[in-house]
Amino acid sequence: MKAVILAAGEGKRLRSHFNRPKPLVSLLGVSLIERNILTLKECNIKDFTIITGCYEREIKEYLGNGEKLGVNITYLHNRDWQLGNGVSAYTYHKNYRQNEKFILLMADHLFQEEVIKNFLKQAPKINQNEIFLAADKDLDKVYDVEECTKIKAEGNLARELGKDLQDFNAVDCGLFLGTKALLNALSQAISQNQYTLTAAVNLMAKQGKVKLHFIKGHWIDVDDPESYKQAEKILLQALVPPKDGFISRTINRKFSLKITKKLAKTKVTPNQITLLSFFTAVASSLFFAGLHPFWGGLLAQITSILDGVDGEIARLKFLKSKYGGLFDSILDRYGDFIIVIGMGYAWYFTAESLLALLICAAALSGIPMSMLFKEKFHTIAQTTYLPEKHDGLFRYLPANRDGRLFIIMLGGILNWIPATLIILAIVTHLQTLFRLFNVRKFL
Amino acid sequence: MKAVILAAGEGKRLRSHFNRPKPLVSLLGVSLIERNILTLKECNIKDFTIITGCYEREIKEYLGNGEKLGVNITYLHNRDWQLGNGVSAYTYHKNYRQNEKFILLMADHLFQEEVIKNFLKQAPKINQNEIFLAADKDLDKVYDVEECTKIKAEGNLARELGKDLQDFNAVDCGLFLGTKALLNALSQAISQNQYTLTAAVNLMAKQGKVKLHFIKGHWIDVDDPESYKQAEKILLQALVPPKDGFISRTINRKFSLKITKKLAKTKVTPNQITLLSFFTAVASSLFFAGLHPFWGGLLAQITSILDGVDGEIARLKFLKSKYGGLFDSILDRYGDFIIVIGMGYAWYFTAESLLALLICAAALSGIPMSMLFKEKFHTIAQTTYLPEKHDGLFRYLPANRDGRLFIIMLGGILNWIPATLIILAIVTHLQTLFRLFNVRKFL
Repeated sequence: MKAVILAAGEGKRLRSHFNRPKPLVSLLGVSLIERNILTLKECNIKDFTIITGCYEREIKEYLGNGEKLGVNITYLHNRDWQLGNGVSAYTYHKNYRQNEKFILLMADHLFQEEVIKNFLKQAPKINQNEIFLAADKDLDKVYDVEECTKIKAEGNLARELGKDLQDFNAVDCGLFLGTKALLNALSQAISQNQYTLTAAVNLMAKQGKVKLHFIKGHWIDVDDPESYKQAEKILLQALVPPKDGFISRTINRKFSLKITKKLAKTKVTPNQITLLSFFTAVASSLFFAGLHPFWGGLLAQITSILDGVDGEIARLKFLKSKYGGLFDSILDRYGDFIIVIGMGYAWYFTAESLLALLICAAALSGIPMSMLFKEKFHTIAQTTYLPEKHDGLFRYLPANRDGRLFIIMLGGILNWIPATLIILAIVTHLQTLFRLFNVRKFL
Repeated sequence: MKAVILAAGEGKRLRSHFNRPKPLVSLLGVSLIERNILTLKECNIKDFTIITGCYEREIKEYLGNGEKLGVNITYLHNRDWQLGNGVSAYTYHKNYRQNEKFILLMADHLFQEEVIKNFLKQAPKINQNEIFLAADKDLDKVYDVEECTKIKAEGNLARELGKDLQDFNAVDCGLFLGTKALLNALSQAISQNQYTLTAAVNLMAKQGKVKLHFIKGHWIDVDDPESYKQAEKILLQALVPPKDGFISRTINRKFSLKITKKLAKTKVTPNQITLLSFFTAVASSLFFAGLHPFWGGLLAQITSILDGVDGEIARLKFLKSKYGGLFDSILDRYGDFIIVIGMGYAWYFTAESLLALLICAAALSGIPMSMLFKEKFHTIAQTTYLPEKHDGLFRYLPANRDGRLFIIMLGGILNWIPATLIILAIVTHLQTLFRLFNVRKFL
């Protein structure tokens, strides 16, 4: 399926603020139109037609034929872009192929990937004589309802649309599944000197031909500096994975999202941050070994925070890679080993105790077991090991990475190194022992 | 598809040796007929008809309705079993359902699982007016050609069959895909007072209705004490996995297969052997720590050998389980940790050196990395990490378990504990480092 992106308007309110065409305004390191293209690419859309108007040259120069993004882009120019977005949308009739359905969206409306995926799942049910429109019923959540196009919906049909509608129960998200019927309605509206997309959709709504898809999830129309900030907020919040560890969720993300927001605007790659996190672990180890446990502990926690940033940047800037995932998980293990060795060294250095050797060894051997167990389970059971499902009450044991590094931070700050190593050894092995007995019922 | 197993004969030559009906003679802990049933079960065959004769009562008592084996067994009795196996095979006409194809085999012919799987893959190509017969062309490999039914084959058709055939190029393995046509041929042969299966197949062969499947892999007709021993040999050899480590293949299997042969006849389970292997590792560690490195080293190698036995018993006696696989791989890691800790303790005890702590820590942290890397790769790439494919020349690094435990044995016997720990630390981390750089091109 092809996607048609309207990028013809002038976007005055953002232009004055950013001094570049609105579709090309960068939001957390990726321009608005690029983010739309890459989000659609994740939904398996590879062919794009971009309708240009005011900034034809700039947009073409910026995106080219799409090769850099791994997609195909063709352009259609609308000389009469000033008349309204209906004229821009109608421009697509030049490329329309018979019986085709296409996605139609605005360059400046951003959607969560899941929203588009769910929308597309319904696409096969739509006939050529109707259209499909994404709408949001959760009006309390919608940002700046005032500015939205309102919809009077009955069941899943739109009865009327308009910016000034008083009697409404949903708003238009600006995401369409277009058909021949839409192009016909646009042509009809234009012949009546009505130049907006809404006018054409209204013609179809009156015939009961506008089906609605009520979205769950986030979207936003980036229109002015306020909505731009709101979009940043939404994108950053969406980076927290649903199955985040307790310490990660309650402490680390507060910092990591701030760092991600800063770094997103630079060219720093996720793998570079993975390396930085690893070197922070090395520094933590050296501080521990040099008998500066306070700084050792603090750096351990920073390691944990940076461990979140690499994934956040990867998801935010469409830089996820399989190699990155593997690189991260192996370097994380090394970081942890090195920190524990630094602590063991410190203990040994002050106490010259054989116990230091043994406890350090126990903690070291416990560290990889959580991941080892989960990965082996995945291979054998061909399903993911989920602590909240498989670990019962033991899921509260701080034996995963965010919990372990938090214990190390506390131990360093309080200068309780022997106790910290003992606790690490206990929680990691206790978790493994429990899993070994408990997992039987799931296999 | 249903399987029909002929178990009607007297089997005199083995009877005198084992003093029980031949189908019930135990071979490496599993009776011949049970092994056939369980091998077919692994090929997704769940319904069985067993044709009894001489030992009706004993076989029924032994197998029951198949519930214990997780299959359904029904019985048909052939009172005239003494006439010949053609009469026994024909007995199945009582249960035959229209247009059915069925597997027909002898209780005392054993096949590798792969042989049956490949045979069954061809089954859909066979029509109701022909039959399909497994044959072996590799006459040098066939055990006791003298005793076999010979086949004169042209292409994949059998032209003539007979025990005394002079001009032959294959032998009959006793594995058939039966059809209505086979039952008809049996009926015709019997009416001509020819009571063997071969006689009926010969009638069809003359009409070009016997298609052959030339097997690759092992099979054997267990007929007398010599072929019984040969069957043991074949089954044990088949237990060595194709992707075995170098030390495992060249040293460990020589011992483990002997142990497996002994233990197969007992009720020892694979998980019990996993535990035994783990406790051997604990003993190895204690000997190292008690400054008896020779015994520590030897026990480490025994750990490695026993690590092979659990899997061998599981495969040999159809006792594989997902839990067993997970239990084994986690306990193996613990065994290794404990041995290395024992060695570190010994070094520390004699040298009181900080270096002992650091090198022991480096070796400890290296041990889980091989498995960790492979499992994570599997999860991310959704394909198995194969050292021979992905590791290049580094596959010869003795960083996998068989190699590591062999190094430990040498180190113990030669009393070179510091050097051993240093080598372990180097090979394990070198392997991981290499993989981390090299794997990029496979992701």
